[in-house]
Amino acid sequence: MDSTPAKQQPKSTIGQYLLNALHQRGVEHIFGVPGDYVLRFDKCIEEHPSIQFINTTRESTAGYMADAYARLRGLGVACITYGVGINITNALAQAYVENSPLVVISGAAGAAEFLKQIKLHHLINKANATLGDTTQLEIFKQVTIGQAVLTDPKTAQQQIDAVLDLCFKTKRPVYIEIPRDMVDAKLSPETAPVLAHDTQSNMQTLDEAMQEVEQMLSRCQRPMLWIGHEIQRYGLAPTLLQFAERYHIPIVTSLLGKTAVSEHHALFAGVYQGDMSSPEVMKLMDQCDCVFMLGLLLSDVDTGIFTAKLDHERRIIASAETFEIGHHHYKKLALNDFIKRLNQLPLEKTFAKTYSNVNTRKKLPFTAHPKTKITTKYVFDCIQHHLQRDHIVVTDIGDSLFGSADLILEQDSFMACAYFGSLGFATPASIAAQLARPKRRVIGIVGDGAFQMTSMELSTAVRYQLDPIIIVLNNHGYGTERPILEGTYNDIQDWNYAAIPQVLQGGVGIKVTTEDGFEEALLQAMQQRGTFYLIEVDLDKLDFSPAMHRFEALVAKNSAKQSGAQCKTL
Amino acid sequence: MDSTPAKQQPKSTIGQYLLNALHQRGVEHIFGVPGDYVLRFDKCIEEHPSIQFINTTRESTAGYMADAYARLRGLGVACITYGVGINITNALAQAYVENSPLVVISGAAGAAEFLKQIKLHHLINKANATLGDTTQLEIFKQVTIGQAVLTDPKTAQQQIDAVLDLCFKTKRPVYIEIPRDMVDAKLSPETAPVLAHDTQSNMQTLDEAMQEVEQMLSRCQRPMLWIGHEIQRYGLAPTLLQFAERYHIPIVTSLLGKTAVSEHHALFAGVYQGDMSSPEVMKLMDQCDCVFMLGLLLSDVDTGIFTAKLDHERRIIASAETFEIGHHHYKKLALNDFIKRLNQLPLEKTFAKTYSNVNTRKKLPFTAHPKTKITTKYVFDCIQHHLQRDHIVVTDIGDSLFGSADLILEQDSFMACAYFGSLGFATPASIAAQLARPKRRVIGIVGDGAFQMTSMELSTAVRYQLDPIIIVLNNHGYGTERPILEGTYNDIQDWNYAAIPQVLQGGVGIKVTTEDGFEEALLQAMQQRGTFYLIEVDLDKLDFSPAMHRFEALVAKNSAKQSGAQCKTL
Repeated sequence: MDSTPAKQQPKSTIGQYLLNALHQRGVEHIFGVPGDYVLRFDKCIEEHPSIQFINTTRESTAGYMADAYARLRGLGVACITYGVGINITNALAQAYVENSPLVVISGAAGAAEFLKQIKLHHLINKANATLGDTTQLEIFKQVTIGQAVLTDPKTAQQQIDAVLDLCFKTKRPVYIEIPRDMVDAKLSPETAPVLAHDTQSNMQTLDEAMQEVEQMLSRCQRPMLWIGHEIQRYGLAPTLLQFAERYHIPIVTSLLGKTAVSEHHALFAGVYQGDMSSPEVMKLMDQCDCVFMLGLLLSDVDTGIFTAKLDHERRIIASAETFEIGHHHYKKLALNDFIKRLNQLPLEKTFAKTYSNVNTRKKLPFTAHPKTKITTKYVFDCIQHHLQRDHIVVTDIGDSLFGSADLILEQDSFMACAYFGSLGFATPASIAAQLARPKRRVIGIVGDGAFQMTSMELSTAVRYQLDPIIIVLNNHGYGTERPILEGTYNDIQDWNYAAIPQVLQGGVGIKVTTEDGFEEALLQAMQQRGTFYLIEVDLDKLDFSPAMHRFEALVAKNSAKQSGAQCKTL
Repeated sequence: MDSTPAKQQPKSTIGQYLLNALHQRGVEHIFGVPGDYVLRFDKCIEEHPSIQFINTTRESTAGYMADAYARLRGLGVACITYGVGINITNALAQAYVENSPLVVISGAAGAAEFLKQIKLHHLINKANATLGDTTQLEIFKQVTIGQAVLTDPKTAQQQIDAVLDLCFKTKRPVYIEIPRDMVDAKLSPETAPVLAHDTQSNMQTLDEAMQEVEQMLSRCQRPMLWIGHEIQRYGLAPTLLQFAERYHIPIVTSLLGKTAVSEHHALFAGVYQGDMSSPEVMKLMDQCDCVFMLGLLLSDVDTGIFTAKLDHERRIIASAETFEIGHHHYKKLALNDFIKRLNQLPLEKTFAKTYSNVNTRKKLPFTAHPKTKITTKYVFDCIQHHLQRDHIVVTDIGDSLFGSADLILEQDSFMACAYFGSLGFATPASIAAQLARPKRRVIGIVGDGAFQMTSMELSTAVRYQLDPIIIVLNNHGYGTERPILEGTYNDIQDWNYAAIPQVLQGGVGIKVTTEDGFEEALLQAMQQRGTFYLIEVDLDKLDFSPAMHRFEALVAKNSAKQSGAQCKTL
């Protein structure tokens, strides 16, 4: 820590301090929509030498973009005005449940403005408050792990440090509210910032847990690692891989945790989702006799609609919030300590190779047939065939997500809101991913229903010369819902998606209907940087990926089990 | 009330009862996005003989559309799935503060699904709840006046009736959550529904208040009625007009209450917004010696940034929540009782005509000059010149709103979220208004920043053959913010807005740059029904309406007063 007395340093304003604190934590871009309560802070961003304000077309997409940035860079920031900024609530909910370190900054009215006893625009003032409006804060409390309302220059620094540390430690979103008359207020007193430390475990607890782990490992023959998104969020993949390599334990991931490790790694076996998994992965998990479930969020989607094998006797669960071995729980354990200690176990043992690596499946022959009507399966096969190491795949919900499960990708090369399922996430997320990782190339895969929600955010790609490749799987409606309960509500208005670049005055739009047409468009897009590509793939209404067919079968099975129910449930 | 024993009637399911209760209250359309938790209820809507499901492209616009429908028809309904439906939160906040009777129905997981101890997709489950997820409910509690979670067929009917009554009485939004396993549950026992009654006043209180009103009225020489949106929401205009006509009292409205009475009425003097008002209206309010402030929401915008004359000595405030005469307050008074009694005052008096009616101002000469660069002022003059009695004007925020203040319109022919200020409201609201009032024609006026937020909802206009005329005032950025604090964040990516119909495969897009070009496009649009028109008006970056120039002057004045402040505040 810097020991220079605080009073000798030039004093920052609250706005400057906040921006510097964000920049120290890796933030170079802030996504947002301006508004009068936040204009002064927007000006601060404009004046900051190392942070760029990225104008988005609306608040909800600013939230999604900051979330995507956070997943790739460790911290993402969205900046909104008061009241109508509530449009960002869903992005916060998603970041909360999927552990994305998202910071939402909102401008607000100044304290003096409330004294006029007149309602201020954009305010909710449920309680007819004359001393402030807390409605937005109360809403955001439901979907953030910490909040700081910066009304006092004496405490602002401490509040900012505390809330950003909390965001870092928990990988959950936080909310910072800055009244417009506080942006230029000088911090008093200012001390050197303290960056976050790792959460610490109780050592006795950790020792006991590790002894149990060692015993289970020494007794079993076919252990597996089933790992989730927290391994990526906390940067634990290298340590975990050393452990896996030492004992020769195969790895599967959840869909939300896909690419937490490189899928080209010899120990990677596939994505596990209960009975929605590929046959190879299902067989492997069926045969295993000890499963390490690490950094997972056990959801209906990730367990293949409750079909995953979750035998209590032979499982070890370790996540940021839960530690369980067999039927008992541990408290006061930190995930990173646990993973580190896995790597230091004294046990000497090597498990036999008992699985087929995904790379063997990758070598399937691939041909683009001319004049052949394109299918979803073909789209994924073609993408797989032409994937390069620097590609990042971002998918939306539905078959875009299910079908992508089978792609084989590098570490940290996949993103989707696989649990919370915000339709429309992938387009803004692809743009933000391109900004966060400018040297890589982003391939966004989006269904038509999802694309209609946020398509026009591609405007931001044009403005900032960002060049994701967006593939719109147009199956003419909400395809994933048709097998659950069909009706006209699953239909949507057909758009000429490829014409969107004409509206945005940038980007390239191509509509394809055949296998070779898609391959040609994909290669053209991959070869040209500097402009976004939008490739609309015209599919049959009921054409699904192989993974989606497995989902369909599960839905039908699930529905048959529920005698009397008139509606199939996911 | 029907006295037939409940058991002799065929029992409804919860879903059917809810839909019938909505239909009894005037609902013929429900706006929404399907999702698996709500599919069974969507199917119920599809099967209902008198209610149509209107697919929207996303939840936030479904909320705006239902809000607009509510303002025109007395009740509006949006239907969403759980979790990601949180995207509707901002529409609820807007409906809450602007008194729009909006019902939001959300599907939810069934009780049995929570028992699996696995997280369900779209759920937030902050408390790791195994018996339910209340996060969405907690968020919506902040922005709704009542909530009903329908988990019990025994109480569902009572809950539905109570919450819809509350919505009717308070003109504020309510939330209904229906778990998917409850949609088909039979009501037990079912009784005849009871529709809402008016709120009742305490008669002694009302008598005392009316005596005071009469005294004030007898003493003053130049009274005024300053009326707001609640007069429209509660349908009190006819009664109030009788009162005004009897005593010959001129009327001004707030911007949010614009067209609560016909602006062609001989007693209508204009829209009052403090120093933002037209000179005629300002003079009138300056001279008045007794002001009835009825059904108003006193906001910064409606008071012209705190410049409205609010002299306590000579004012009577009556609204759904507040009654004040001079410096004292009354409780237990209902707005409708108060307005009714105004009409029964024994006082005989007629005030002298002391104002110029707006109709005299309307007769200004109007000419479209060929090849003359178009201005915002011209756009409003041209619209005014060609306005017909069946037109409804819907405006977004910024100069679209400010400039529309001077238009002279029929009763109930104007809509804007003039207080809460959700940028992007007008486009979905115009489509919904066209659905709610199919015989009339809707003219939406939207700035380019607002239009970028929700433009693609015009997809829904194409799908359902709705034909609003959308005028995009393209001043190349967030124009209203430029006078407050200029920066690059106020710029936006220029779109070729007129090309949007090519994407949507419906509608007509026209870009105009000259006065005569605009008039021609407007007349073409007005003459053709059955298709939406999008008229993009290319304006100079700093071209504003006369009203916006008054706003700009106020902002500058306000800023000059605040010495030391580095930022102009609205």
